[in-house]
Amino acid sequence: MNTLLLDSGAVDEHADTAAVIDAVERAFEAFERGRTQMPAKSYVDLPQYNGDFRSMPAYLETDRWDAAGLKWVNVHPDNPVDHGLPTVLGTMIYSDPETAFPLAIMDGTTLTMKRTGAAAAVATDYLAVEDAASLGIVGAGVQSYTQLEAIGEVRPIEEVVVADKDDGRIERFVEAFGDVYDVRAGTISEAGHCDVLSTVTPVEEPIVGLEDVGAKTHVNAIGADAAGKHELADELLTAATIVIDDHEQCTHSGEINVPYGERVLTDADIHAEIGELVVGSKPARTDETGITVFDSTGLAIQDVAAAHVVYERASDAGGGLEFDLVGVGRPSESN
Amino acid sequence: MNTLLLDSGAVDEHADTAAVIDAVERAFEAFERGRTQMPAKSYVDLPQYNGDFRSMPAYLETDRWDAAGLKWVNVHPDNPVDHGLPTVLGTMIYSDPETAFPLAIMDGTTLTMKRTGAAAAVATDYLAVEDAASLGIVGAGVQSYTQLEAIGEVRPIEEVVVADKDDGRIERFVEAFGDVYDVRAGTISEAGHCDVLSTVTPVEEPIVGLEDVGAKTHVNAIGADAAGKHELADELLTAATIVIDDHEQCTHSGEINVPYGERVLTDADIHAEIGELVVGSKPARTDETGITVFDSTGLAIQDVAAAHVVYERASDAGGGLEFDLVGVGRPSESN
Repeated sequence: MNTLLLDSGAVDEHADTAAVIDAVERAFEAFERGRTQMPAKSYVDLPQYNGDFRSMPAYLETDRWDAAGLKWVNVHPDNPVDHGLPTVLGTMIYSDPETAFPLAIMDGTTLTMKRTGAAAAVATDYLAVEDAASLGIVGAGVQSYTQLEAIGEVRPIEEVVVADKDDGRIERFVEAFGDVYDVRAGTISEAGHCDVLSTVTPVEEPIVGLEDVGAKTHVNAIGADAAGKHELADELLTAATIVIDDHEQCTHSGEINVPYGERVLTDADIHAEIGELVVGSKPARTDETGITVFDSTGLAIQDVAAAHVVYERASDAGGGLEFDLVGVGRPSESN
Repeated sequence: MNTLLLDSGAVDEHADTAAVIDAVERAFEAFERGRTQMPAKSYVDLPQYNGDFRSMPAYLETDRWDAAGLKWVNVHPDNPVDHGLPTVLGTMIYSDPETAFPLAIMDGTTLTMKRTGAAAAVATDYLAVEDAASLGIVGAGVQSYTQLEAIGEVRPIEEVVVADKDDGRIERFVEAFGDVYDVRAGTISEAGHCDVLSTVTPVEEPIVGLEDVGAKTHVNAIGADAAGKHELADELLTAATIVIDDHEQCTHSGEINVPYGERVLTDADIHAEIGELVVGSKPARTDETGITVFDSTGLAIQDVAAAHVVYERASDAGGGLEFDLVGVGRPSESN
């Protein structure tokens, strides 16, 4: 009985964008309906290496499938300069909930990008204006590509404005998408005046002000991933309709963690969890809605949902490498 | 840059028994010296499948090496009958602490058996009589084999007495070891009157009484792994010098959890954590010591220590399968 090994290329190939968006939307729905199990992330802090590991186990049940797994992921900011490796690396174990057999082991780095883009797309689908045709990107690093890929699935995006201090990153982004979209470099304010804006930077202090966005812009705030980090000015957040993915994570390490900690924002300023929009218990954008912000911290159930898509599609297509990790033979032959 | 894949056979081949015992002893030492990080196990409970998953991340630092990793393991008691699969399956991700690169992914099922045997051997080395020549085994299931393999490394074992209700299990055990040791079937009391006894059963109610062991027998209590389970009678535990691996785990799910919960045993009855014997802050067996019991629940640092040995030895020997999981190229070529 084999475990399917899926490297970064295989994850990229089988993580069909529309299917991952749908699976992540179902995960948010399951979360809202209490049909998930997601223990708090466990941290292993290694200050001597300026890094940490995080363990993210989860289970979710939708009307059509259930899935379980674990992502082992890290943040090692010195990796690029000191070791020529990405800051964030991930490994995903995707398991059969019924037997715990490890169905697949896959690259969690690519998977993280896919599920993060998918979460932004789900939020954009509920919160952006219906005919959104322009997308701004602030921060054209590795996590920005799946923002466009995924958001382009839910809105008729034609124009893309990319803001980044690094010209090389902009060039690579334009090269990747220039033949499909009208992509150009611009200021943060030009990016922010698009119908949809995704901020994907590691900044600690806000770089997007209230004056930098349009009156009905929907903002996906992706970058903040630790206490003390935020990308959006307090004035922008207080003016916006705020939707979060998870209260605990967002108030501790998400976009809103700093103003929430300073009581500039309180629970009364949070419109909804994204799952409440999916199930319809809280309203999505209406004609009256102005600026909206989605605070995306990334949930373990998103990884499991995306891994479900990758595993099912790779299995159907004969992708990946079969490996007899556990050495237990086929179930029907043993015992 | 490749990740080394090690299936159950490779783990078995490269988990050199003496080296794993030494690594696990160093892990207990590091634990005692505060040079480990081991967040509490996270549980994902799936009552609909009568099973659960556990996430076990850890880091440890010894004088000569450090290591990090995570074991994703489960308990699904219906697996053998319903699915022809083991109750417990495990997958281990072994990571470079400095960069978080996944150095190896290995079968955690075999690894668990190896590190559990090694823990019993470390305890036996500190607590059994010096010239121990006989070993009793109560419960000849899959976890019992590494008890003999490992304990045979630290004491001059010649005679082995195996007690099990299932004749088939005894036959297989005798077949596996009969040409190296004088192995025979016996009663629980005959097994318990050996110099060393390992109990490796899933029973919920005690099956080994005070009258079943010798005056200076050392007992490795391996089986209890959940609240409510114990193998040794209260009278035996209260008469014995008790050594545990971890206070939190042992008092909640280890051999002593039931009498500890009923206040039949208190902290005053616990002689030491095994790490205290290793560093010498508490005495090991002396001429005056009678019965000793080691309550082994299994720590995440044992898995990481054993994985360190397997990875280093497999790498040196060119074992395992190289797989480019992450797809980042060689560090010197990237960036």
